[in-house]
Amino acid sequence: MFYTIDILGTIAFAISGVLVAFNKKMDLFGVLIIAFVTAVGGGTLRDLLIGNTPVSWMMDMTYTYVIIASAIFAIIFRSKINYLRTSLFLFDTIGIGLYTLVGIEKGLQAELHPVICIALGTMTASFGGVLRDILCNEIPVIFRKEIYATACILGGASYFLFIKLPIDSNIVFLIAGLVVIIIRLLAVKFKIALPNIYSN
Amino acid sequence: MFYTIDILGTIAFAISGVLVAFNKKMDLFGVLIIAFVTAVGGGTLRDLLIGNTPVSWMMDMTYTYVIIASAIFAIIFRSKINYLRTSLFLFDTIGIGLYTLVGIEKGLQAELHPVICIALGTMTASFGGVLRDILCNEIPVIFRKEIYATACILGGASYFLFIKLPIDSNIVFLIAGLVVIIIRLLAVKFKIALPNIYSN
Amino acid sequence: MFYTIDILGTIAFAISGVLVAFNKKMDLFGVLIIAFVTAVGGGTLRDLLIGNTPVSWMMDMTYTYVIIASAIFAIIFRSKINYLRTSLFLFDTIGIGLYTLVGIEKGLQAELHPVICIALGTMTASFGGVLRDILCNEIPVIFRKEIYATACILGGASYFLFIKLPIDSNIVFLIAGLVVIIIRLLAVKFKIALPNIYSN
Repeated sequence: MFYTIDILGTIAFAISGVLVAFNKKMDLFGVLIIAFVTAVGGGTLRDLLIGNTPVSWMMDMTYTYVIIASAIFAIIFRSKINYLRTSLFLFDTIGIGLYTLVGIEKGLQAELHPVICIALGTMTASFGGVLRDILCNEIPVIFRKEIYATACILGGASYFLFIKLPIDSNIVFLIAGLVVIIIRLLAVKFKIALPNIYSN
Repeated sequence: MFYTIDILGTIAFAISGVLVAFNKKMDLFGVLIIAFVTAVGGGTLRDLLIGNTPVSWMMDMTYTYVIIASAIFAIIFRSKINYLRTSLFLFDTIGIGLYTLVGIEKGLQAELHPVICIALGTMTASFGGVLRDILCNEIPVIFRKEIYATACILGGASYFLFIKLPIDSNIVFLIAGLVVIIIRLLAVKFKIALPNIYSN
Repeated sequence: MFYTIDILGTIAFAISGVLVAFNKKMDLFGVLIIAFVTAVGGGTLRDLLIGNTPVSWMMDMTYTYVIIASAIFAIIFRSKINYLRTSLFLFDTIGIGLYTLVGIEKGLQAELHPVICIALGTMTASFGGVLRDILCNEIPVIFRKEIYATACILGGASYFLFIKLPIDSNIVFLIAGLVVIIIRLLAVKFKIALPNIYSN
Protein backbone atom coordinates (compact mmCIF):
# COMPACT_ATOMS: atom_id res chain seq x y z
CA MET A 1 0.00 0.00 0.00
CA PHE A 2 2.73 2.46 1.04
CA TYR A 3 4.78 1.35 -1.93
CA THR A 4 1.88 1.90 -4.35
CA ILE A 5 1.35 5.44 -3.11
CA ASP A 6 5.08 6.05 -3.28
CA ILE A 7 5.02 5.06 -6.96
CA LEU A 8 1.98 7.26 -7.63
CA GLY A 9 3.85 10.18 -6.04
CA THR A 10 6.92 9.43 -8.16
CA ILE A 11 4.76 9.47 -11.31
CA ALA A 12 3.19 12.80 -10.36
CA PHE A 13 6.55 14.39 -9.56
CA ALA A 14 8.11 13.08 -12.79
CA ILE A 15 5.27 14.47 -14.89
CA SER A 16 5.41 17.83 -13.12
CA GLY A 17 9.09 17.94 -14.08
CA VAL A 18 8.27 17.19 -17.71
CA LEU A 19 5.73 20.01 -17.82
CA VAL A 20 8.18 22.60 -16.47
CA ALA A 21 10.95 21.37 -18.80
CA PHE A 22 8.58 21.72 -21.74
CA ASN A 23 8.00 25.36 -20.95
CA LYS A 24 11.77 25.85 -21.12
CA LYS A 25 11.95 24.18 -24.56
CA MET A 26 14.43 21.60 -23.30
CA ASP A 27 15.39 18.71 -25.55
CA LEU A 28 14.44 15.07 -24.91
CA PHE A 29 17.42 14.44 -22.66
CA GLY A 30 16.81 17.62 -20.67
CA VAL A 31 13.17 16.67 -20.17
CA LEU A 32 14.10 13.20 -18.89
CA ILE A 33 16.68 14.60 -16.49
CA ILE A 34 14.31 17.20 -15.08
CA ALA A 35 11.65 14.49 -14.64
CA PHE A 36 14.19 12.34 -12.81
CA VAL A 37 15.54 15.12 -10.64
CA THR A 38 12.06 16.30 -9.66
CA ALA A 39 11.06 12.77 -8.64
CA VAL A 40 14.16 11.66 -6.73
CA GLY A 41 15.88 14.97 -5.83
CA GLY A 42 14.36 15.25 -2.36
CA GLY A 43 15.19 11.71 -1.31
CA THR A 44 18.70 12.08 -2.72
CA LEU A 45 19.46 15.19 -0.68
CA ARG A 46 18.07 13.46 2.43
CA ASP A 47 20.20 10.37 1.83
CA LEU A 48 23.34 12.46 1.25
CA LEU A 49 22.86 14.55 4.40
CA ILE A 50 22.42 11.53 6.65
CA GLY A 51 25.09 9.49 4.86
CA ASN A 52 22.78 6.82 3.47
CA THR A 53 24.79 5.90 0.33
CA PRO A 54 24.58 4.69 -2.38
CA VAL A 55 21.40 6.76 -2.40
CA SER A 56 18.04 4.94 -2.41
CA TRP A 57 17.06 5.17 -6.09
CA MET A 58 20.34 3.52 -7.08
CA MET A 59 19.39 0.42 -5.11
CA ASP A 60 15.84 -0.11 -6.47
CA MET A 61 15.40 0.10 -10.24
CA THR A 62 11.61 0.49 -9.97
CA TYR A 63 11.99 4.25 -9.55
CA THR A 64 14.13 4.59 -12.66
CA TYR A 65 11.72 2.58 -14.80
CA VAL A 66 8.63 4.36 -13.49
CA ILE A 67 10.17 7.79 -14.06
CA ILE A 68 11.29 7.00 -17.61
CA ALA A 69 7.86 5.54 -18.43
CA SER A 70 6.05 8.56 -16.92
CA ALA A 71 8.24 11.01 -18.81
CA ILE A 72 7.73 9.22 -22.13
CA PHE A 73 3.99 9.08 -21.45
CA ALA A 74 3.92 12.82 -20.69
CA ILE A 75 5.91 13.62 -23.81
CA ILE A 76 3.66 11.57 -26.08
CA PHE A 77 0.40 12.81 -24.60
CA ARG A 78 1.58 16.33 -23.85
CA SER A 79 -1.32 17.94 -25.70
CA LYS A 80 -3.80 15.98 -23.58
CA ILE A 81 -2.02 16.34 -20.24
CA ASN A 82 -4.35 19.16 -19.22
CA TYR A 83 -7.18 16.68 -18.83
CA LEU A 84 -5.09 14.91 -16.20
CA ARG A 85 -4.29 18.03 -14.23
CA THR A 86 -6.66 17.18 -11.37
CA SER A 87 -5.42 13.60 -11.10
CA LEU A 88 -1.83 14.82 -11.18
CA PHE A 89 -2.52 17.34 -8.45
CA LEU A 90 -4.02 14.57 -6.31
CA PHE A 91 -1.07 12.23 -6.95
CA ASP A 92 1.32 15.05 -6.12
CA THR A 93 -0.53 15.87 -2.91
CA ILE A 94 -0.65 12.24 -1.79
CA GLY A 95 2.99 11.99 -2.87
CA ILE A 96 4.21 14.78 -0.61
CA GLY A 97 2.25 13.28 2.29
CA LEU A 98 4.01 9.98 1.84
CA TYR A 99 7.42 11.44 1.03
CA THR A 100 7.23 13.45 4.25
CA LEU A 101 6.68 10.24 6.21
CA VAL A 102 9.51 8.42 4.43
CA GLY A 103 11.87 11.27 5.34
CA ILE A 104 10.78 11.26 8.98
CA GLU A 105 11.26 7.50 9.20
CA LYS A 106 14.81 7.72 7.82
CA GLY A 107 15.60 10.45 10.33
CA LEU A 108 14.26 8.32 13.18
CA GLN A 109 16.39 5.37 12.00
CA ALA A 110 19.46 7.64 12.15
CA GLU A 111 18.37 8.66 15.67
CA LEU A 112 18.15 12.34 14.86
CA HIS A 113 16.27 15.05 16.78
CA PRO A 114 12.52 15.37 15.97
CA VAL A 115 13.03 18.85 14.46
CA ILE A 116 15.70 17.41 12.14
CA CYS A 117 13.40 14.51 11.26
CA ILE A 118 10.66 16.97 10.28
CA ALA A 119 13.22 18.88 8.21
CA LEU A 120 14.24 15.65 6.47
CA GLY A 121 10.60 14.83 5.75
CA THR A 122 9.95 18.29 4.32
CA MET A 123 13.15 18.08 2.26
CA THR A 124 12.18 14.68 0.86
CA ALA A 125 8.81 16.05 -0.20
CA SER A 126 9.80 19.43 -1.55
CA PHE A 127 13.45 19.51 -2.62
CA GLY A 128 12.84 17.76 -5.94
CA GLY A 129 10.68 20.71 -6.97
CA VAL A 130 13.35 23.15 -5.78
CA LEU A 131 16.02 21.42 -7.88
CA ARG A 132 13.66 21.36 -10.86
CA ASP A 133 13.22 25.13 -10.60
CA ILE A 134 16.95 25.80 -10.11
CA LEU A 135 17.84 23.72 -13.17
CA CYS A 136 15.19 25.61 -15.14
CA ASN A 137 16.66 28.89 -13.89
CA GLU A 138 13.63 29.98 -11.88
CA ILE A 139 13.38 31.12 -8.28
CA PRO A 140 11.97 27.99 -6.60
CA VAL A 141 8.20 28.32 -6.54
CA ILE A 142 7.88 26.99 -2.99
CA PHE A 143 9.89 29.95 -1.71
CA ARG A 144 7.36 32.36 -3.09
CA LYS A 145 3.85 31.12 -2.83
CA GLU A 146 1.44 28.48 -1.62
CA ILE A 147 1.32 26.35 1.45
CA TYR A 148 3.49 23.44 0.38
CA ALA A 149 6.46 22.88 2.63
CA THR A 150 4.35 24.29 5.45
CA ALA A 151 1.93 21.37 5.03
CA CYS A 152 4.86 18.94 5.33
CA ILE A 153 6.18 20.68 8.43
CA LEU A 154 2.77 20.65 10.14
CA GLY A 155 2.21 17.02 9.19
CA GLY A 156 5.64 16.13 10.55
CA ALA A 157 4.95 18.02 13.76
CA SER A 158 1.64 16.19 14.16
CA TYR A 159 3.54 12.89 13.94
CA PHE A 160 5.70 13.79 16.93
CA LEU A 161 2.66 15.09 18.77
CA PHE A 162 0.51 11.98 18.31
CA ILE A 163 3.32 9.47 18.77
CA LYS A 164 3.36 10.46 22.46
CA LEU A 165 -0.25 9.31 22.82
CA PRO A 166 -1.09 5.63 23.31
CA ILE A 167 -1.88 5.10 19.61
CA ASP A 168 -0.50 2.43 17.30
CA SER A 169 2.46 3.91 15.38
CA ASN A 170 1.02 2.88 11.99
CA ILE A 171 -2.09 4.90 12.74
CA VAL A 172 0.05 7.87 13.79
CA PHE A 173 1.82 7.64 10.43
CA LEU A 174 -1.55 7.59 8.70
CA ILE A 175 -2.76 10.64 10.64
CA ALA A 176 0.43 12.59 9.91
CA GLY A 177 0.16 11.82 6.21
CA LEU A 178 -3.47 12.91 6.18
CA VAL A 179 -2.56 16.16 7.95
CA VAL A 180 -0.11 16.99 5.13
CA ILE A 181 -2.64 16.10 2.45
CA ILE A 182 -5.61 17.90 4.01
CA ILE A 183 -3.67 21.11 4.73
CA ARG A 184 -2.38 21.12 1.16
CA LEU A 185 -5.85 20.51 -0.29
CA LEU A 186 -7.49 23.18 1.88
CA ALA A 187 -4.74 25.67 1.08
CA VAL A 188 -5.21 25.23 -2.66
CA LYS A 189 -9.02 25.10 -2.45
CA PHE A 190 -9.25 28.30 -0.40
CA LYS A 191 -6.12 29.94 -1.84
CA ILE A 192 -4.50 30.22 1.56
CA ALA A 193 -0.92 31.50 1.58
CA LEU A 194 1.55 32.30 4.32
CA PRO A 195 0.99 35.71 5.93
CA ASN A 196 2.35 38.48 3.74
CA ILE A 197 5.49 39.90 5.37
CA TYR A 198 5.84 42.73 2.88
CA SER A 199 2.76 44.79 3.69
CA ASN A 200 3.52 48.35 4.76
CA MET B 1 35.07 31.47 23.19
CA PHE B 2 35.34 29.74 19.80
CA TYR B 3 31.77 28.53 20.19
CA THR B 4 30.49 32.02 21.00
CA ILE B 5 32.12 33.48 17.89
CA ASP B 6 30.76 30.58 15.86
CA ILE B 7 27.26 31.46 17.04
CA LEU B 8 27.79 35.16 16.26
CA GLY B 9 28.88 34.18 12.76
CA THR B 10 25.82 31.97 12.36
CA ILE B 11 23.58 34.87 13.39
CA ALA B 12 25.24 37.22 10.90
CA PHE B 13 25.00 34.71 8.05
CA ALA B 14 21.36 33.93 8.84
CA ILE B 15 20.42 37.61 8.85
CA SER B 16 22.29 38.23 5.60
CA GLY B 17 20.18 35.44 4.10
CA VAL B 18 16.98 37.07 5.36
CA LEU B 19 17.93 40.39 3.79
CA VAL B 20 18.59 38.87 0.36
CA ALA B 21 15.38 36.78 0.53
CA PHE B 22 13.44 39.96 1.36
CA ASN B 23 14.66 41.62 -1.81
CA LYS B 24 13.27 38.67 -3.73
CA LYS B 25 9.85 38.97 -2.05
CA MET B 26 10.01 35.41 -0.75
CA ASP B 27 7.36 34.19 1.65
CA LEU B 28 8.00 33.35 5.31
CA PHE B 29 9.09 29.80 4.56
CA GLY B 30 11.41 30.90 1.77
CA VAL B 31 13.00 33.49 4.04
CA LEU B 32 13.63 30.90 6.77
CA ILE B 33 15.13 28.43 4.30
CA ILE B 34 17.45 31.03 2.77
CA ALA B 35 18.55 32.08 6.28
CA PHE B 36 19.26 28.45 7.12
CA VAL B 37 21.06 27.66 3.89
CA THR B 38 23.24 30.77 4.13
CA ALA B 39 24.25 29.90 7.68
CA VAL B 40 24.94 26.17 7.33
CA GLY B 41 25.46 25.70 3.58
CA GLY B 42 29.25 25.97 3.68
CA GLY B 43 29.68 23.51 6.53
CA THR B 44 27.24 21.11 4.89
CA LEU B 45 29.15 21.02 1.60
CA ARG B 46 32.39 20.48 3.53
CA ASP B 47 30.89 17.63 5.55
CA LEU B 48 29.46 15.97 2.44
CA LEU B 49 32.75 16.16 0.52
CA ILE B 50 34.78 14.59 3.32
CA GLY B 51 32.05 12.10 4.23
CA ASN B 52 31.30 13.49 7.68
CA THR B 53 27.63 12.44 7.92
CA PRO B 54 25.04 13.04 9.30
CA VAL B 55 26.23 16.61 8.68
CA SER B 56 27.20 18.76 11.67
CA TRP B 57 24.08 20.90 12.08
CA MET B 58 21.94 17.78 12.36
CA MET B 59 23.87 16.71 15.44
CA ASP B 60 23.74 20.00 17.43
CA MET B 61 20.35 21.70 17.66
CA THR B 62 21.89 25.01 18.79
CA TYR B 63 22.44 26.05 15.17
CA THR B 64 18.82 25.39 14.22
CA TYR B 65 17.46 27.35 17.16
CA VAL B 66 19.87 30.27 16.67
CA ILE B 67 19.05 30.51 12.96
CA ILE B 68 15.29 30.42 13.48
CA ALA B 69 15.55 33.04 16.23
CA SER B 70 17.79 35.28 14.09
CA ALA B 71 15.48 35.02 11.11
CA ILE B 72 12.40 35.85 13.17
CA PHE B 73 14.27 38.77 14.74
CA ALA B 74 15.29 40.05 11.30
CA ILE B 75 11.74 39.72 9.97
CA ILE B 76 10.20 41.58 12.91
CA PHE B 77 12.77 44.37 12.97
CA ARG B 78 13.34 44.53 9.23
CA SER B 79 12.68 48.25 9.04
CA LYS B 80 15.35 48.88 11.68
CA ILE B 81 17.93 46.40 10.41
CA ASN B 82 19.86 49.16 8.68
CA TYR B 83 20.99 50.48 12.06
CA LEU B 84 22.65 47.12 12.67
CA ARG B 85 24.47 47.02 9.35
CA THR B 86 27.88 47.74 10.88
CA SER B 87 27.43 45.16 13.64
CA LEU B 88 26.26 42.61 11.10
CA PHE B 89 29.25 43.29 8.88
CA LEU B 90 31.56 42.76 11.86
CA PHE B 91 29.80 39.52 12.88
CA ASP B 92 30.01 38.31 9.29
CA THR B 93 33.70 39.14 9.06
CA ILE B 94 34.51 37.45 12.35
CA GLY B 95 32.28 34.60 11.21
CA ILE B 96 34.21 33.90 8.02
CA GLY B 97 37.46 34.05 9.97
CA LEU B 98 36.23 31.37 12.33
CA TYR B 99 34.43 29.28 9.71
CA THR B 100 37.69 29.16 7.73
CA LEU B 101 39.47 27.73 10.77
CA VAL B 102 36.71 25.18 11.41
CA GLY B 103 37.01 23.97 7.82
CA ILE B 104 40.79 23.69 8.02
CA GLU B 105 40.55 21.72 11.25
CA LYS B 106 38.10 19.24 9.74
CA GLY B 107 40.43 18.80 6.77
CA LEU B 108 43.37 18.15 9.08
CA GLN B 109 41.34 15.56 10.99
CA ALA B 110 40.64 13.79 7.69
CA GLU B 111 44.39 13.93 6.96
CA LEU B 112 43.98 15.85 3.72
CA HIS B 113 46.62 17.88 1.87
CA PRO B 114 47.11 21.51 3.11
CA VAL B 115 45.78 22.93 -0.17
CA ILE B 116 42.62 20.84 0.23
CA CYS B 117 42.32 21.96 3.87
CA ILE B 118 42.49 25.60 2.75
CA ALA B 119 39.83 24.86 0.12
CA LEU B 120 37.63 23.27 2.80
CA GLY B 121 38.09 26.33 5.03
CA THR B 122 37.23 28.72 2.21
CA MET B 123 34.23 26.59 1.28
CA THR B 124 32.96 26.53 4.86
CA ALA B 125 33.19 30.30 5.02
CA SER B 126 31.83 31.25 1.63
CA PHE B 127 29.64 28.52 0.17
CA GLY B 128 26.58 29.45 2.24
CA GLY B 129 26.55 32.80 0.47
CA VAL B 130 26.97 31.10 -2.90
CA LEU B 131 23.99 28.83 -2.25
CA ARG B 132 21.96 31.81 -1.06
CA ASP B 133 22.64 33.59 -4.35
CA ILE B 134 21.91 30.51 -6.49
CA LEU B 135 18.58 29.93 -4.73
CA CYS B 136 17.75 33.60 -5.27
CA ASN B 137 18.68 33.24 -8.95
CA GLU B 138 21.66 35.60 -8.87
CA ILE B 139 25.22 35.05 -10.04
CA PRO B 140 27.02 34.46 -6.73
CA VAL B 141 28.35 37.81 -5.53
CA ILE B 142 31.70 36.38 -4.43
CA PHE B 143 32.47 35.40 -8.02
CA ARG B 144 32.17 38.98 -9.15
CA LYS B 145 33.48 41.40 -6.61
CA GLU B 146 35.20 42.01 -3.32
CA ILE B 147 37.97 40.25 -1.53
CA TYR B 148 36.03 37.61 0.33
CA ALA B 149 37.11 34.09 -0.48
CA THR B 150 40.58 35.51 -1.12
CA ALA B 151 40.76 36.57 2.54
CA CYS B 152 39.88 33.01 3.57
CA ILE B 153 42.51 31.54 1.26
CA LEU B 154 45.25 33.86 2.52
CA GLY B 155 44.25 33.23 6.13
CA GLY B 156 44.32 29.50 5.49
CA ALA B 157 47.73 29.77 3.82
CA SER B 158 49.06 31.74 6.78
CA TYR B 159 47.98 28.90 9.06
CA PHE B 160 50.14 26.40 7.18
CA LEU B 161 52.99 28.92 7.08
CA PHE B 162 53.02 29.69 10.80
CA ILE B 163 52.35 26.13 11.95
CA LYS B 164 55.87 25.25 10.79
CA LEU B 165 57.31 27.77 13.25
CA PRO B 166 57.75 26.88 16.92
CA ILE B 167 54.50 28.57 17.94
CA ASP B 168 51.66 27.10 20.00
CA SER B 169 48.99 25.80 17.60
CA ASN B 170 46.21 27.75 19.34
CA ILE B 171 48.11 30.96 18.66
CA VAL B 172 48.60 29.95 15.04
CA PHE B 173 44.85 29.46 14.76
CA LEU B 174 44.33 32.90 16.26
CA ILE B 175 46.79 34.49 13.82
CA ALA B 176 45.19 32.79 10.83
CA GLY B 177 41.73 33.91 11.88
CA LEU B 178 43.00 37.48 12.33
CA VAL B 179 44.59 37.39 8.86
CA VAL B 180 41.20 36.56 7.33
CA ILE B 181 39.44 39.26 9.33
CA ILE B 182 42.03 42.00 8.76
CA ILE B 183 42.29 41.38 5.00
CA ARG B 184 38.52 41.45 4.71
CA LEU B 185 38.26 44.68 6.75
CA LEU B 186 41.04 46.40 4.81
CA ALA B 187 39.56 45.31 1.49
CA VAL B 188 36.16 46.78 2.34
CA LYS B 189 37.61 49.91 3.95
CA PHE B 190 39.84 50.72 0.96
CA LYS B 191 37.57 49.17 -1.67
CA ILE B 192 40.27 46.75 -2.79
CA ALA B 193 39.20 44.16 -5.37
CA LEU B 194 41.05 41.46 -7.25
CA PRO B 195 43.01 42.74 -10.25
CA ASN B 196 40.69 43.38 -13.18
CA ILE B 197 41.33 40.72 -15.82
CA TYR B 198 39.08 42.34 -18.40
CA SER B 199 41.03 45.54 -19.11
CA ASN B 200 42.20 45.89 -22.68
CA MET C 1 47.66 6.09 -20.97
CA PHE C 2 44.25 6.32 -19.31
CA TYR C 3 45.70 8.77 -16.80
CA THR C 4 47.17 10.98 -19.55
CA ILE C 5 43.83 11.21 -21.33
CA ASP C 6 42.14 11.90 -18.01
CA ILE C 7 44.47 14.86 -17.50
CA LEU C 8 43.87 16.12 -21.05
CA GLY C 9 40.14 15.96 -20.37
CA THR C 10 40.61 17.83 -17.10
CA ILE C 11 42.53 20.57 -18.94
CA ALA C 12 39.82 20.89 -21.57
CA PHE C 13 37.03 21.06 -19.00
CA ALA C 14 38.93 23.61 -16.89
CA ILE C 15 39.52 25.86 -19.89
CA SER C 16 35.89 25.58 -21.00
CA GLY C 17 34.97 26.79 -17.51
CA VAL C 18 37.33 29.75 -17.80
CA LEU C 19 35.80 30.78 -21.12
CA VAL C 20 32.23 30.76 -19.76
CA ALA C 21 33.28 32.61 -16.60
CA PHE C 22 34.95 35.27 -18.76
CA ASN C 23 31.71 35.92 -20.57
CA LYS C 24 30.12 36.57 -17.20
CA LYS C 25 32.85 39.08 -16.23
CA MET C 26 33.75 37.11 -13.13
CA ASP C 27 36.79 38.10 -11.11
CA LEU C 28 39.96 36.01 -10.82
CA PHE C 29 38.60 33.92 -7.96
CA GLY C 30 35.30 33.29 -9.71
CA VAL C 31 37.12 32.19 -12.85
CA LEU C 32 39.27 29.72 -10.90
CA ILE C 33 36.26 28.28 -9.10
CA ILE C 34 34.27 27.83 -12.29
CA ALA C 35 37.29 26.14 -13.91
CA PHE C 36 37.57 23.82 -10.93
CA VAL C 37 33.88 23.02 -10.72
CA THR C 38 33.62 22.32 -14.45
CA ALA C 39 36.57 19.93 -14.28
CA VAL C 40 35.72 17.98 -11.11
CA GLY C 41 31.97 18.59 -10.66
CA GLY C 42 30.85 15.42 -12.41
CA GLY C 43 33.19 13.13 -10.51
CA THR C 44 32.27 14.83 -7.26
CA LEU C 45 28.53 14.25 -7.71
CA ARG C 46 29.23 10.61 -8.63
CA ASP C 47 31.41 10.11 -5.55
CA LEU C 48 28.83 11.71 -3.27
CA LEU C 49 25.94 9.61 -4.62
CA ILE C 50 27.78 6.32 -4.17
CA GLY C 51 29.36 7.36 -0.86
CA ASN C 52 32.96 7.41 -2.06
CA THR C 53 34.33 10.06 0.33
CA PRO C 54 36.53 12.06 0.73
CA VAL C 55 35.81 12.65 -2.97
CA SER C 56 38.47 11.66 -5.52
CA TRP C 57 40.07 15.05 -6.27
CA MET C 58 40.80 15.57 -2.57
CA MET C 59 42.97 12.47 -2.56
CA ASP C 60 45.13 13.20 -5.64
CA MET C 61 46.61 16.70 -5.87
CA THR C 62 47.42 16.31 -9.58
CA TYR C 63 43.92 17.46 -10.52
CA THR C 64 44.14 20.61 -8.42
CA TYR C 65 47.52 21.58 -9.87
CA VAL C 66 46.49 20.83 -13.46
CA ILE C 67 43.28 22.85 -13.11
CA ILE C 68 45.01 25.87 -11.57
CA ALA C 69 47.72 25.77 -14.25
CA SER C 70 45.12 25.45 -17.05
CA ALA C 71 43.07 28.30 -15.70
CA ILE C 72 46.09 30.60 -15.37
CA PHE C 73 47.17 29.63 -18.88
CA ALA C 74 43.69 30.40 -20.24
CA ILE C 75 43.58 33.74 -18.43
CA ILE C 76 47.00 34.83 -19.72
CA PHE C 77 46.43 33.71 -23.30
CA ARG C 78 42.73 34.52 -23.42
CA SER C 79 43.04 36.62 -26.56
CA LYS C 80 44.69 33.71 -28.37
CA ILE C 81 42.45 30.95 -27.03
CA ASN C 82 40.41 30.95 -30.23
CA TYR C 83 43.34 29.38 -32.09
CA LEU C 84 43.09 26.45 -29.69
CA ARG C 85 39.38 25.93 -30.10
CA THR C 86 39.73 22.78 -32.22
CA SER C 87 42.28 21.23 -29.87
CA LEU C 88 40.08 22.07 -26.91
CA PHE C 89 37.06 20.51 -28.57
CA LEU C 90 39.06 17.33 -29.19
CA PHE C 91 40.36 17.23 -25.59
CA ASP C 92 36.82 17.78 -24.35
CA THR C 93 35.45 15.01 -26.57
CA ILE C 94 38.16 12.55 -25.54
CA GLY C 95 37.59 13.72 -21.98
CA ILE C 96 33.89 12.84 -21.91
CA GLY C 97 34.68 9.46 -23.45
CA LEU C 98 37.10 8.69 -20.67
CA TYR C 99 35.05 10.28 -17.88
CA THR C 100 32.11 8.10 -18.93
CA LEU C 101 34.25 4.99 -18.51
CA VAL C 102 35.58 6.14 -15.12
CA GLY C 103 32.00 6.61 -13.92
CA ILE C 104 30.93 3.18 -15.17
CA GLU C 105 33.90 1.54 -13.49
CA LYS C 106 33.10 3.17 -10.13
CA GLY C 107 29.50 1.99 -10.47
CA LEU C 108 30.64 -1.56 -11.19
CA GLN C 109 32.91 -1.47 -8.15
CA ALA C 110 29.91 -0.47 -6.02
CA GLU C 111 28.00 -3.39 -7.61
CA LEU C 112 25.24 -1.20 -8.99
CA HIS C 113 22.77 -2.03 -11.79
CA PRO C 114 24.06 -1.44 -15.37
CA VAL C 115 21.52 1.34 -15.95
CA ILE C 116 22.78 3.11 -12.81
CA CYS C 117 26.39 2.58 -13.95
CA ILE C 118 25.57 4.25 -17.27
CA ALA C 119 23.91 7.09 -15.38
CA LEU C 120 27.04 7.48 -13.22
CA GLY C 121 29.21 7.55 -16.33
CA THR C 122 27.04 10.17 -18.00
CA MET C 123 26.98 12.21 -14.80
CA THR C 124 30.77 12.08 -14.47
CA ALA C 125 31.14 13.33 -18.03
CA SER C 126 28.46 15.97 -18.13
CA PHE C 127 27.61 17.27 -14.68
CA GLY C 128 30.64 19.57 -14.45
CA GLY C 129 29.23 21.52 -17.38
CA VAL C 130 25.80 21.60 -15.78
CA LEU C 131 27.22 23.02 -12.54
CA ARG C 132 29.24 25.58 -14.56
CA ASP C 133 26.05 26.77 -16.22
CA ILE C 134 24.05 26.89 -12.98
CA LEU C 135 26.77 28.94 -11.25
CA CYS C 136 26.82 31.27 -14.25
CA ASN C 137 23.02 31.58 -14.04
CA GLU C 138 22.29 29.93 -17.39
CA ILE C 139 19.97 27.05 -18.21
CA PRO C 140 22.44 24.16 -18.62
CA VAL C 141 23.39 23.95 -22.28
CA ILE C 142 23.22 20.16 -22.36
CA PHE C 143 19.51 20.29 -21.55
CA ARG C 144 18.83 22.33 -24.64
CA LYS C 145 20.98 21.31 -27.55
CA GLU C 146 23.53 18.99 -29.00
CA ILE C 147 24.16 15.31 -28.60
CA TYR C 148 26.35 15.32 -25.53
CA ALA C 149 24.96 13.28 -22.70
CA THR C 150 23.32 11.08 -25.33
CA ALA C 151 26.78 10.12 -26.60
CA CYS C 152 27.77 9.13 -23.06
CA ILE C 153 24.60 7.08 -22.60
CA LEU C 154 25.06 5.22 -25.90
CA GLY C 155 28.75 4.61 -25.16
CA GLY C 156 27.82 3.29 -21.74
CA ALA C 157 25.15 1.05 -23.22
CA SER C 158 27.67 -0.31 -25.75
CA TYR C 159 29.94 -1.27 -22.86
CA PHE C 160 27.26 -3.48 -21.32
CA LEU C 161 26.43 -4.89 -24.74
CA PHE C 162 29.97 -5.87 -25.68
CA ILE C 163 31.00 -7.06 -22.22
CA LYS C 164 28.68 -10.06 -22.76
CA LEU C 165 30.71 -11.11 -25.79
CA PRO C 166 33.94 -13.07 -25.38
CA ILE C 167 36.12 -9.96 -25.72
CA ASP C 168 38.88 -8.79 -23.36
CA SER C 169 37.40 -6.22 -20.96
CA ASN C 170 40.10 -3.64 -21.75
CA ILE C 171 39.10 -3.77 -25.39
CA VAL C 172 35.44 -3.38 -24.44
CA PHE C 173 36.39 -0.27 -22.49
CA LEU C 174 38.24 1.05 -25.52
CA ILE C 175 35.25 0.37 -27.80
CA ALA C 176 32.81 2.05 -25.41
CA GLY C 177 35.06 5.12 -25.16
CA LEU C 178 35.33 5.29 -28.94
CA VAL C 179 31.54 5.04 -29.28
CA VAL C 180 31.15 8.12 -27.07
CA ILE C 181 33.82 10.04 -28.98
CA ILE C 182 32.63 9.09 -32.48
CA ILE C 183 28.97 9.88 -31.77
CA ARG C 184 29.95 13.23 -30.33
CA LEU C 185 32.21 14.05 -33.30
CA LEU C 186 29.60 12.98 -35.85
CA ALA C 187 26.87 14.94 -34.05
CA VAL C 188 28.90 18.13 -34.10
CA LYS C 189 30.18 17.60 -37.65
CA PHE C 190 26.72 16.98 -39.06
CA LYS C 191 24.86 19.19 -36.58
CA ILE C 192 22.72 16.32 -35.37
CA ALA C 193 20.45 17.08 -32.43
CA LEU C 194 17.85 15.10 -30.56
CA PRO C 195 14.47 14.96 -32.30
CA ASN C 196 12.55 18.16 -31.79
CA ILE C 197 9.64 17.45 -29.44
CA TYR C 198 8.09 20.89 -29.89
CA SER C 199 7.01 20.74 -33.52
CA ASN C 200 3.33 21.26 -34.05
